[in-house]
Amino acid sequence: MPYHHQPADNQPQGDQPAKDPTLLVRQADPLNGGPPPNQLLESFITPNERFFVRSHAHAPQIPPTAYTISIDGFVDRPQILTLADLQHFPRQTITATLQCAGNRRDELLALGPIPDELAWGSDAISTATWSGVRLGDLLATAGVADTADHVAFLSHDRVQKHGQTFPFGASIPLKKALASEVLVADQMNGQPLPVIHGGPVRLIVPGYIGARSVKWLAQITLQTEPSTNYFQAHAYKLFPPNTTAATVDWNDGMMLAELSVTSAICTPTDYSRIPPGPLRISGYAMAGGNRTIERVEFSLDAGQTWQQAQLGERQPWAWRFWEGTIDLAPGAYQLVVRAWDSAANTQPAQLAEVWNFKGYMNNAWHRIHLLVDPPTDPN
Amino acid sequence: MPYHHQPADNQPQGDQPAKDPTLLVRQADPLNGGPPPNQLLESFITPNERFFVRSHAHAPQIPPTAYTISIDGFVDRPQILTLADLQHFPRQTITATLQCAGNRRDELLALGPIPDELAWGSDAISTATWSGVRLGDLLATAGVADTADHVAFLSHDRVQKHGQTFPFGASIPLKKALASEVLVADQMNGQPLPVIHGGPVRLIVPGYIGARSVKWLAQITLQTEPSTNYFQAHAYKLFPPNTTAATVDWNDGMMLAELSVTSAICTPTDYSRIPPGPLRISGYAMAGGNRTIERVEFSLDAGQTWQQAQLGERQPWAWRFWEGTIDLAPGAYQLVVRAWDSAANTQPAQLAEVWNFKGYMNNAWHRIHLLVDPPTDPN
Repeated sequence: MPYHHQPADNQPQGDQPAKDPTLLVRQADPLNGGPPPNQLLESFITPNERFFVRSHAHAPQIPPTAYTISIDGFVDRPQILTLADLQHFPRQTITATLQCAGNRRDELLALGPIPDELAWGSDAISTATWSGVRLGDLLATAGVADTADHVAFLSHDRVQKHGQTFPFGASIPLKKALASEVLVADQMNGQPLPVIHGGPVRLIVPGYIGARSVKWLAQITLQTEPSTNYFQAHAYKLFPPNTTAATVDWNDGMMLAELSVTSAICTPTDYSRIPPGPLRISGYAMAGGNRTIERVEFSLDAGQTWQQAQLGERQPWAWRFWEGTIDLAPGAYQLVVRAWDSAANTQPAQLAEVWNFKGYMNNAWHRIHLLVDPPTDPN
Repeated sequence: MPYHHQPADNQPQGDQPAKDPTLLVRQADPLNGGPPPNQLLESFITPNERFFVRSHAHAPQIPPTAYTISIDGFVDRPQILTLADLQHFPRQTITATLQCAGNRRDELLALGPIPDELAWGSDAISTATWSGVRLGDLLATAGVADTADHVAFLSHDRVQKHGQTFPFGASIPLKKALASEVLVADQMNGQPLPVIHGGPVRLIVPGYIGARSVKWLAQITLQTEPSTNYFQAHAYKLFPPNTTAATVDWNDGMMLAELSVTSAICTPTDYSRIPPGPLRISGYAMAGGNRTIERVEFSLDAGQTWQQAQLGERQPWAWRFWEGTIDLAPGAYQLVVRAWDSAANTQPAQLAEVWNFKGYMNNAWHRIHLLVDPPTDPN
């Protein structure tokens, strides 16, 4: 890749409305894309029009008065709730970062093929303030039976895959479903939830991979086992490094749930050419589950020595921004970042350590290349 | 280190009663030691006489009728509870692994000095079934004020350090203190809690570093900030890699809490000489917080390729045993193991990546050396 003076070229917008024209479109139909990473850092809360979009199907078009969410399975009182019914529950608000399990997949492509997956950079992550009702309050209305251990979800969408048509689905453990941070949200940053982000109603599961925050929520089922939906039982599983598309047994692999600890350099961008002298560097870090980011370090000698980054606001369930200053003589450099979470977990150094043929959960040290030009002649 | 045919020599027992004579004594007075790692794997539950011992002071000698636990600070009704009072609360039982933050410190000694700390091998970990009452039930009796965010603990012991005498102490966030898994325990594996393990009454904080499970529990204080006790505010903090004993600012550093993901090879032992042919290898893996071990892998080529270990019983809050089979031609080998937890976190490869001058939380890949002898002459 050549060195350049500008961020990566912005790609054309998809056919969906109300997204920022600078969105890096990974797939036009259905729309998938995220903001240029340096834009991510402009505010702790990502504006709706910049929030990354991960869609497996077109947004369903349902008249608001016809929209329903059913609650069934191991419950005492099965429910069919309308949007009006949701207004009878207490309102809750939470700021939470969503991150796709495929965030930073593009770096893994240097190690091998990753068929049928989007080549996300470090842009499949964003943060919003979500409002709605607690999933636990909806479940209490239905009455959860003792036999239930998992809560499965289906979307109103229709995914086309392998010659079949079926709704997107997921599940989470019942214990997580009952936690106060899990919302059935109808507002995003104070606005009605945009259709492209799952409106009128989506699930928000803070601390988990984005795929569990099911958009266009249609059905909630209490059951004894995790969902058998394609996106829980087949996709979004972490396979060992030696597994390939040719050898995979889809019954194996670990169903992804909580996010692993990660970080990324957002400014400068990779392969930037910069003048000599002090340069501000910055990025984000993210911890999974209920953990927080407690330390971010950067290195200019491939991890032989580390400098401590200054850390921004710390909020549960959200990313943490970091920044630092480097002062480099002319030459070529690699800048490396790693984060530590509140459980003393840190990131693996090498991409090979996290390689998996689906390209999920790449949390290896993030590295960018910098070329520091000689000082310009004042004449 | 020479290759040997036997496990490491057993060291002499300290002056404390009722511990297995094979205990690897790291310090005789006060007693600190753990079982030879291959013994750890003999049972999922570690027998009391083999359970590792971490003591910062002698066990206090208090007549049972005079033993009290006070609850004070931001509470509505301060309490002074006797052992008899504890019997009025509902009984709870949990199986939980305790692991010292210094487990596997010995490997880090190759990288630099670690003053004033014990050179634990992979033996500072054990598992027991603990019975007692929920800390949350005791706190409910006292009535927790809204202003409280942390729960601090003091022991009845008297630590001698830096010319001062003071009780061992620690704190945990209130949210953790109220969780159902946190016990004030008076039984260990069905027996009255042995004095050396904190009897008559200790705290058990599953998923956290062992130092938070305060032995000989004396005082419970609800407060707004973490404990200022030496063992919370000074020791048991994780410092950046460039911090040294000469440069440390003790106000910095991260107070340790949840354990990071780790694993260890217990059989064969390091520098074993083995005959050619199939050999069973085995060990333990441990995840922190409420996470579980979901994958263990081993490698004979320094992590270029990995084989999947078979996993034993999975229980929340406890370690998970693993095993595999290798079949080696004569020669010298390094065997490496790493684990993955349910949040897709894995272990760093190199010791240098986790180096800190206090030697805490070494969860780098565990490595042992093997020498496979030529086949013996049948004559």
